[in-house]
Amino acid sequence: MNRFERNVQNFLGCDSGYEESKIVIFGAPFDSTTSYRPGTRFASAAMRNESYGIETYSPYQDKDLEDICVFDSGDLELPIGSAELALADIESRAEMIISDGKIPCMIGGEHLVTLGAVRAMVKKYADLQLIQLDAHADLREDYLGVQLSHACVMRRCYELLGDGRIFQFGIRSGTREEFEFAKSHTNMRKFDLAGIEETVQKIGQKPVYFTLDLDVLDSSQLPATGTPEVGGVSFLDLMGAIKEISGLNIVGFDINELSPPYDQSGASTALACKLLREMMLYFY
Amino acid sequence: MNRFERNVQNFLGCDSGYEESKIVIFGAPFDSTTSYRPGTRFASAAMRNESYGIETYSPYQDKDLEDICVFDSGDLELPIGSAELALADIESRAEMIISDGKIPCMIGGEHLVTLGAVRAMVKKYADLQLIQLDAHADLREDYLGVQLSHACVMRRCYELLGDGRIFQFGIRSGTREEFEFAKSHTNMRKFDLAGIEETVQKIGQKPVYFTLDLDVLDSSQLPATGTPEVGGVSFLDLMGAIKEISGLNIVGFDINELSPPYDQSGASTALACKLLREMMLYFY
Amino acid sequence: MNRFERNVQNFLGCDSGYEESKIVIFGAPFDSTTSYRPGTRFASAAMRNESYGIETYSPYQDKDLEDICVFDSGDLELPIGSAELALADIESRAEMIISDGKIPCMIGGEHLVTLGAVRAMVKKYADLQLIQLDAHADLREDYLGVQLSHACVMRRCYELLGDGRIFQFGIRSGTREEFEFAKSHTNMRKFDLAGIEETVQKIGQKPVYFTLDLDVLDSSQLPATGTPEVGGVSFLDLMGAIKEISGLNIVGFDINELSPPYDQSGASTALACKLLREMMLYFY
Amino acid sequence: MNRFERNVQNFLGCDSGYEESKIVIFGAPFDSTTSYRPGTRFASAAMRNESYGIETYSPYQDKDLEDICVFDSGDLELPIGSAELALADIESRAEMIISDGKIPCMIGGEHLVTLGAVRAMVKKYADLQLIQLDAHADLREDYLGVQLSHACVMRRCYELLGDGRIFQFGIRSGTREEFEFAKSHTNMRKFDLAGIEETVQKIGQKPVYFTLDLDVLDSSQLPATGTPEVGGVSFLDLMGAIKEISGLNIVGFDINELSPPYDQSGASTALACKLLREMMLYFY
Amino acid sequence: MNRFERNVQNFLGCDSGYEESKIVIFGAPFDSTTSYRPGTRFASAAMRNESYGIETYSPYQDKDLEDICVFDSGDLELPIGSAELALADIESRAEMIISDGKIPCMIGGEHLVTLGAVRAMVKKYADLQLIQLDAHADLREDYLGVQLSHACVMRRCYELLGDGRIFQFGIRSGTREEFEFAKSHTNMRKFDLAGIEETVQKIGQKPVYFTLDLDVLDSSQLPATGTPEVGGVSFLDLMGAIKEISGLNIVGFDINELSPPYDQSGASTALACKLLREMMLYFY
Amino acid sequence: MNRFERNVQNFLGCDSGYEESKIVIFGAPFDSTTSYRPGTRFASAAMRNESYGIETYSPYQDKDLEDICVFDSGDLELPIGSAELALADIESRAEMIISDGKIPCMIGGEHLVTLGAVRAMVKKYADLQLIQLDAHADLREDYLGVQLSHACVMRRCYELLGDGRIFQFGIRSGTREEFEFAKSHTNMRKFDLAGIEETVQKIGQKPVYFTLDLDVLDSSQLPATGTPEVGGVSFLDLMGAIKEISGLNIVGFDINELSPPYDQSGASTALACKLLREMMLYFY
Repeated sequence: MNRFERNVQNFLGCDSGYEESKIVIFGAPFDSTTSYRPGTRFASAAMRNESYGIETYSPYQDKDLEDICVFDSGDLELPIGSAELALADIESRAEMIISDGKIPCMIGGEHLVTLGAVRAMVKKYADLQLIQLDAHADLREDYLGVQLSHACVMRRCYELLGDGRIFQFGIRSGTREEFEFAKSHTNMRKFDLAGIEETVQKIGQKPVYFTLDLDVLDSSQLPATGTPEVGGVSFLDLMGAIKEISGLNIVGFDINELSPPYDQSGASTALACKLLREMMLYFY
Repeated sequence: MNRFERNVQNFLGCDSGYEESKIVIFGAPFDSTTSYRPGTRFASAAMRNESYGIETYSPYQDKDLEDICVFDSGDLELPIGSAELALADIESRAEMIISDGKIPCMIGGEHLVTLGAVRAMVKKYADLQLIQLDAHADLREDYLGVQLSHACVMRRCYELLGDGRIFQFGIRSGTREEFEFAKSHTNMRKFDLAGIEETVQKIGQKPVYFTLDLDVLDSSQLPATGTPEVGGVSFLDLMGAIKEISGLNIVGFDINELSPPYDQSGASTALACKLLREMMLYFY
Repeated sequence: MNRFERNVQNFLGCDSGYEESKIVIFGAPFDSTTSYRPGTRFASAAMRNESYGIETYSPYQDKDLEDICVFDSGDLELPIGSAELALADIESRAEMIISDGKIPCMIGGEHLVTLGAVRAMVKKYADLQLIQLDAHADLREDYLGVQLSHACVMRRCYELLGDGRIFQFGIRSGTREEFEFAKSHTNMRKFDLAGIEETVQKIGQKPVYFTLDLDVLDSSQLPATGTPEVGGVSFLDLMGAIKEISGLNIVGFDINELSPPYDQSGASTALACKLLREMMLYFY
Repeated sequence: MNRFERNVQNFLGCDSGYEESKIVIFGAPFDSTTSYRPGTRFASAAMRNESYGIETYSPYQDKDLEDICVFDSGDLELPIGSAELALADIESRAEMIISDGKIPCMIGGEHLVTLGAVRAMVKKYADLQLIQLDAHADLREDYLGVQLSHACVMRRCYELLGDGRIFQFGIRSGTREEFEFAKSHTNMRKFDLAGIEETVQKIGQKPVYFTLDLDVLDSSQLPATGTPEVGGVSFLDLMGAIKEISGLNIVGFDINELSPPYDQSGASTALACKLLREMMLYFY
Repeated sequence: MNRFERNVQNFLGCDSGYEESKIVIFGAPFDSTTSYRPGTRFASAAMRNESYGIETYSPYQDKDLEDICVFDSGDLELPIGSAELALADIESRAEMIISDGKIPCMIGGEHLVTLGAVRAMVKKYADLQLIQLDAHADLREDYLGVQLSHACVMRRCYELLGDGRIFQFGIRSGTREEFEFAKSHTNMRKFDLAGIEETVQKIGQKPVYFTLDLDVLDSSQLPATGTPEVGGVSFLDLMGAIKEISGLNIVGFDINELSPPYDQSGASTALACKLLREMMLYFY
Repeated sequence: MNRFERNVQNFLGCDSGYEESKIVIFGAPFDSTTSYRPGTRFASAAMRNESYGIETYSPYQDKDLEDICVFDSGDLELPIGSAELALADIESRAEMIISDGKIPCMIGGEHLVTLGAVRAMVKKYADLQLIQLDAHADLREDYLGVQLSHACVMRRCYELLGDGRIFQFGIRSGTREEFEFAKSHTNMRKFDLAGIEETVQKIGQKPVYFTLDLDVLDSSQLPATGTPEVGGVSFLDLMGAIKEISGLNIVGFDINELSPPYDQSGASTALACKLLREMMLYFY
């Protein structure tokens, strides 16, 4: 190491400069609206730390993070306690990245952070499609009177995108009203990931934002999340779905809801790191 | 809230009055005979706390706890240290509930608590059948000289019910003697839940007490139990079995052996809450 | 237990009715503005659960909770994610209690919840004095642009009360600006609790709201808080201060910042329960 | 290592043979009557494991465990679930040791185990005196109807010993009735260890059983116990008291109530190991 | 218990004498080269402690540990900090056991310990074959300049055995170079355990050392390991593979990489204990 | 943030450039020789993360980290498994920093890392004095045959410095031999920090390396260390000693043995961060 340089901590293998990079990572450590168990604010820091336990090379794809250019811009300093201010900061960061023709890769935080990114996206991509893998519908009108809540994030996105442009998979929790709402307004697949292939064909070349709420996974594979949900999909199912989706025109993506304080074994964080490696290699 | 009322804590959505309710919940926080790792005494309190992380609505059944009437009577104050006194209290509570024509739903506690409920049941239902989902046979004559032990609970129930009326599924741990005993005296299915359908047909309309030891699940899905056992069934397998059983005449049921001190991630408690929701909706 | 009654969970020994009670407990499970480590939202539930590990009798005072009348009204259902709505609910609850001539005893939550109570208090008591025991000054104008933040709560209270009516003890963390502000506007004692006696004399019979941020204690005695601070006071020092204060006209009080997810041993929660018992016995 | 020998695990430095030893250690892993948080059954195993983190040499006494002869006889296999059977096993082990003219050193377990040892002691030593260092009086007549409970252990010992022969120090929790009982029947020092010196003089050369409930320590120094109690004594205070006591005719002693499941940092177990080393060196 | 005997702790049911035993267990508590999260040094102690939570009887094989003769020789006292010295001690212990015609069963420790055993094995068995079940290839030439590293252990074994004698299954992590190396020099099966049957046929009656790195299991079933890896095999898959392998001429075996500090629930340690029971029953 | 810059993570307030800085921080994440409980390799990363929970301003000194220039150069990438290589890297980094006229501030790691720094120091400062605050003497000739062990680090330093130049305080654990050795060769104060003032006078203006093993603190205040030791000094005692020492010519310093995996509450890491802030402000 040159004596003037810091030994800075990026996500594993993501040490390219901004200019040359096609993907730009940023962390959105925000969980103020989490109704149940907070902790996702620690996800991006934990994932950077723990990424050094995995390899840059993917035997699944026979590709290596060393062969692609990703810039890890670190974490936003979000004003905990104000969802509106935090969303504005996220929107601004995402906007900067897409205005430079790059793909934003956001590490949440609670799922509400997705709204900030989608707000930026729809300004540039008028026909944006949204693919959501999640255990929860997140379609409530409000949650205890609050509209900017993680439990409402897809409803808020719906208000930006309109009917038929949100594709939901793996959903297994919600109110009766949310499931009713989905019947008329979104494309929802309950419980599993079947139908991804048809969705890919239907979307074609339209720009896609992909949001991954890690609780779509079965709670045996990902216990460390705000609301662990049993009955979910397996890692290999999820890998298959991401591979399918990688054929689309992905203009931005995120990975959310890892909650490190509940990850005593570290297995959930390790899984999230591996998924992020695979997503970056697939979507590059 | 009216100023004279407490904001009392029930299991999610179980806030009906006693008179109107068909199911009555009570907790049996007892684990004094647990030979290995105690902690199940905290299960009922933890499940009430954590139940607010799930929804009242079940997308599996398209039913909602808000649509049925359940009274949560809270926990028994059991004399830790005396199995005999504790069983007497449990028996008395179960007897009161069935004498009012309602279905008792007991949250253990170690598995020994089932004996208290079964003692009450056999007094009212002479031809009671017992379905047990469990990793352990629990058929020992005694355990280090103690007969009222969790490891002996099914043997004690057998003494009340006699040959052929106990149906055991998922059993994968025990002494050679227990497996031998089962060949002559109970209906035991090793390792998995195959054969539930035939059991349902065989039992017909006879009254059934259903006891669920959560360690029947694979330890990946339910690590937080006194004796986690790998090689078990999955949540979806278990849901399938409960659905089958729901066609029977269930006169009482329990859910046992969740051990919250070993549930750092909370995923086991969340699973137990979801199972209890589904059981109440199925057995109502 | 009568069959129509629930075995409801109050804080230990606080099972009197509302009408007869002089002190009314309520929980304020809110931590959305916590900048560092959330978790205090779980404090009131944890304290009720764990209170059964202590006794109703205080050998320090030779008094017993069984001899006084306290009503535990349970927890407010606060809208996580909106500080303004949450404060309004707290204010409303505190207002109801004081309008009935009773003393509100609030269990936080992060320290911001105190603002809700103080807003109610100043409407009834124009000359309200505020005694704060805390490691942190909490006097910032804003925190990352947010004014309703736990780091600003005393500044917001100051805006309601004005110069010289806030008495701060044990303060050992803050920005240089906060310490400067205190010199002109509050009565601040750094590091320890010396000077309580003079404060008591100075205040005389004016009405006092007493707010206890548990991090005033040394982090060895109370590690389970959002921002554990070493170099603090001991439990016995704190007990001495509370005894001194008990001679004042206490019209409301709170206990804040216990964070149960960080209390693996349970010792912090046990300490908080004991303190609450002593405070109720002293302030009754 | 000779190929026929096992590499067995003793408490650090306690590897002498039975015949040559003056002190004989045994573990009493029993916690079935623990009303609040079980876990002390794991104490003796944890202390053996963790003892290798300390040294055999005491700089406090300038003595070394290598220079004395202690036999570690391992743990009793106690019938969890039956206090009466467990106490009989403990009594029998203690009796064997004292009949050989050796000093039993018991590692609990919950405090009830002391009753088993005292039963053996009083048969041999008619004028036995009992010194108890504890946060709790343990003088209840019964606990929820159970008489063989950790909360009643000193009351049961009192029934064997009679008035004035139990010396209690550090007591800071109990019911009003227990404190009243102590006034007439035991010698109780509340809160701290003052008065040990007078006690030592008063007892003179009568045989003494010394029982140490670790919760006499402040919960900051020993959080990992069934019922952590703040406001206790420091390690150095306790060391001073043990030194005083070591001048007496100690015919047996125990160390109780360490609960390893609540000791995430390991600091409590390390402390208990160091205390046991010091006690053995002092009482040899 | 005779008063002169210790109540020593073996792995469950492994209390035969050395002479009569066919399998000899020893622990190799070494993890000094672990690059990521140390802790496997505690595995052998934890497995002995926790083995009492399982049964001696295997319903999978209808065999019982009570019916076979195994000697548990305890743990080596390895010089933490020096891989070379530690390997020499392991080699020496393994050599002693095989020179007496017995089968060594080593409990690691990190995977590097296998090198010590293999060094002993190749001296006696010139045509030794090595079967490795693992998530990681462990084929690096060096790791940050260190050649005796867990990440290089199979490369070091390769240097002893040569081409084609190492059979690797379940491999899903490594550098591109390791996967390239394997193509020419070892028999590697990526991701799963397919092909075990052919391997068994190919090896025939040649002597086999079997090394099990527990991270071959999916991280949902075994989270408590140094580097948990999702996407692995299930317990039942692994049991099937061990059954296949048991037909071979197994002259030594080990089980590695359990990390108890990351096993809050105890489920990983319980799984490892069960696997060890099954391996001993299969390989006897 | 400028789009080309990373939001890099330094220790709180240590974001000056290398050239302008007087103190240069580096992490030495090494714990391979830790004989008991590894984990200190995670200390530097944890302290950077958690430093954002404290303030840059010290009310103890009325100084602010914002007012001084410190460069945080990040962590060395040390070859886990080879003490010799790791020490060479540490020596090289320390040498670079002192050759530029700056003060190295090393965050360990286990205490062995101090040897690397001292090796660099003695080359530049022939009359280097060493002040060590520690619970352990660390004066063994070897530990299980290994000479480069944390338990031997002061013995190795002694070999570089010679008689009378090592000043040890707070020592309360070691073998009899170590305490004997100290009598002839070092200046050792047992148990507490008395005598710092005389030491300061004795040393005068000679260059001093200051090494702080955090286990000098009582285990109640710092439980999260490799070998927690009760009976130690308090935080305020330690602050007093550091203040005394700050009058000396400190040419380098370190802080060692924080073990974040054992810090569930975070209180130990918070304490270490505060101490580091105070040390930098005192030694600047």
